[in-house]
Amino acid sequence: MDTHNVVALPVVSRVAVCGGTHGNELSGVYLVRERLKRREDGTEPVSVVTLMSNPRAVQLCVRYVETDLNRCFTRAALSAPVSEDSPYEMIRSRELNALLGPKGSVQAVDLLCDLHNTTANTGLCLITHSDCDWIALHICKHLQREMSSTPVRYVHFDLPLDEAYSLDSVGKHGFAMEVGPQPHGLVRSGIFSAMQEGVQLMLDWIWQFNSGTLFEGGSVDIFTMVKNIDYPRDPQTHMITAAVHPDLQDRDFCLLHPGEPMFLSFSGETLRYRGKEALYPFFINEAAYYEKGVALSLARKRRVEIPSVRSDTQR
Amino acid sequence: MDTHNVVALPVVSRVAVCGGTHGNELSGVYLVRERLKRREDGTEPVSVVTLMSNPRAVQLCVRYVETDLNRCFTRAALSAPVSEDSPYEMIRSRELNALLGPKGSVQAVDLLCDLHNTTANTGLCLITHSDCDWIALHICKHLQREMSSTPVRYVHFDLPLDEAYSLDSVGKHGFAMEVGPQPHGLVRSGIFSAMQEGVQLMLDWIWQFNSGTLFEGGSVDIFTMVKNIDYPRDPQTHMITAAVHPDLQDRDFCLLHPGEPMFLSFSGETLRYRGKEALYPFFINEAAYYEKGVALSLARKRRVEIPSVRSDTQR
Repeated sequence: MDTHNVVALPVVSRVAVCGGTHGNELSGVYLVRERLKRREDGTEPVSVVTLMSNPRAVQLCVRYVETDLNRCFTRAALSAPVSEDSPYEMIRSRELNALLGPKGSVQAVDLLCDLHNTTANTGLCLITHSDCDWIALHICKHLQREMSSTPVRYVHFDLPLDEAYSLDSVGKHGFAMEVGPQPHGLVRSGIFSAMQEGVQLMLDWIWQFNSGTLFEGGSVDIFTMVKNIDYPRDPQTHMITAAVHPDLQDRDFCLLHPGEPMFLSFSGETLRYRGKEALYPFFINEAAYYEKGVALSLARKRRVEIPSVRSDTQR
Repeated sequence: MDTHNVVALPVVSRVAVCGGTHGNELSGVYLVRERLKRREDGTEPVSVVTLMSNPRAVQLCVRYVETDLNRCFTRAALSAPVSEDSPYEMIRSRELNALLGPKGSVQAVDLLCDLHNTTANTGLCLITHSDCDWIALHICKHLQREMSSTPVRYVHFDLPLDEAYSLDSVGKHGFAMEVGPQPHGLVRSGIFSAMQEGVQLMLDWIWQFNSGTLFEGGSVDIFTMVKNIDYPRDPQTHMITAAVHPDLQDRDFCLLHPGEPMFLSFSGETLRYRGKEALYPFFINEAAYYEKGVALSLARKRRVEIPSVRSDTQR
């Protein structure tokens, strides 16, 4: 191997694993509780801060109490004035930013993994605002290699750091680890196990990376979010008038072609995808996005080459 | 056929179809909205009162606002004093009882069908407190005959009318029509369609019955609820420590034998069913029952013979 093409990167010393950012996404909630129970047993190869992001929402088993915590981490939101009358999640986002960030600073944790569940049939996705975070991309490759029964994908929301709104953007590297399908408010053993395996493999990779292992480059498919599609709605009442079509339901990351069925109205009419470009649907029929006017998102897939990496401090 | 063995029953003139008794069970919510939109078109063969049971909970997309409406219809609850400080659902249950009942009276609707969804893989269940309601049992037989792609079952909670707590107990005949699996807070097209088909077949049966059609008797399997099983919990914190085992998840109404896997703990330990009798699990991993301490329910199956029926007024 030509080691001149190896990118040397700082070690990933400080890792945060967060769950309960949405309080009714229970695999992450129980995984964090489980980790907190045994955090002192010293068996983990990497030092990890484990944290319940939104304990009040977890207590009530709701997504959020007053506003969606995972939309509170833009630069603007973090620097807006708050008072004791501000929404709980606005206040909590400052606490988390102080604890794990500040976002964009040298003090921020090296990697922030935020655990999420979706009702959509996504498998395991690493979701982040960056398409050139070699650490995140190498971790994705590692999970793709090692996880036999769960499809693993890299999803990219193309936003500058300042506008990235999610908790994971507080870390120097970071991503949401989104696993589905799981209904909100319950835990399915298979989904919990997939998330547990994903976290363990991530920590294994970090340990190997910090220990000086060289990871060879290669290609990774990146799904970049292009647009959201809302449900058909009644123009007067704004109520939805159709559900996701049975032919599309559960087919996240399967290419959707122009003219293919998208919705089936409650009165039995099929509505088709009217775009001009075949795209990859994801977050199909996510319960939490009804209020956001999103029936599904559409992504473009492209293959990117990532360099070989090793840590610049060989210990 | 020996018509001496035919039971003559009163016509089923007044039918109520209710949805949104739990505000986040969306197939019923959208089905009721759809019915209310086209209620004036006069195409339905039977006169039906269509009703949104808990509009405040529907508005907020939650199961209930202050207390579970579908536990408010015991004789005791309906006759307890209420004030304006009483939980919203206690007050709403009186309104519904006045509109559709009063429970146990001659004024009550002849049949009340209350639409529900569950996160459990139940198919379509008719759930009621009676195991000898020939109307409900004949409707069940009709659905079993006519629905090709959805399993249909009759579930019996053995309670005297006074102690029956659910909205459907307000009608002279009645049942919850429970369809799953569907996560709460979203609608899946296939589940919506199954519910729509179930309601339509029920109304078809009632129309035929009212028209003088003789329905032959036969046998129906009844699943009678025996007991609930809670999740394993931490004795100190009362937090659950295990999820439903992957071998049991989604296997509602498949016989569970003593010694078979029931839970998989978050640390990886399999916990087995310790009962002495093989029973039929149902409501496996229903999200709304975490707070009620129910991981699943167990039923005994028996086959009952039901008589041939016809209406006593041949129109």
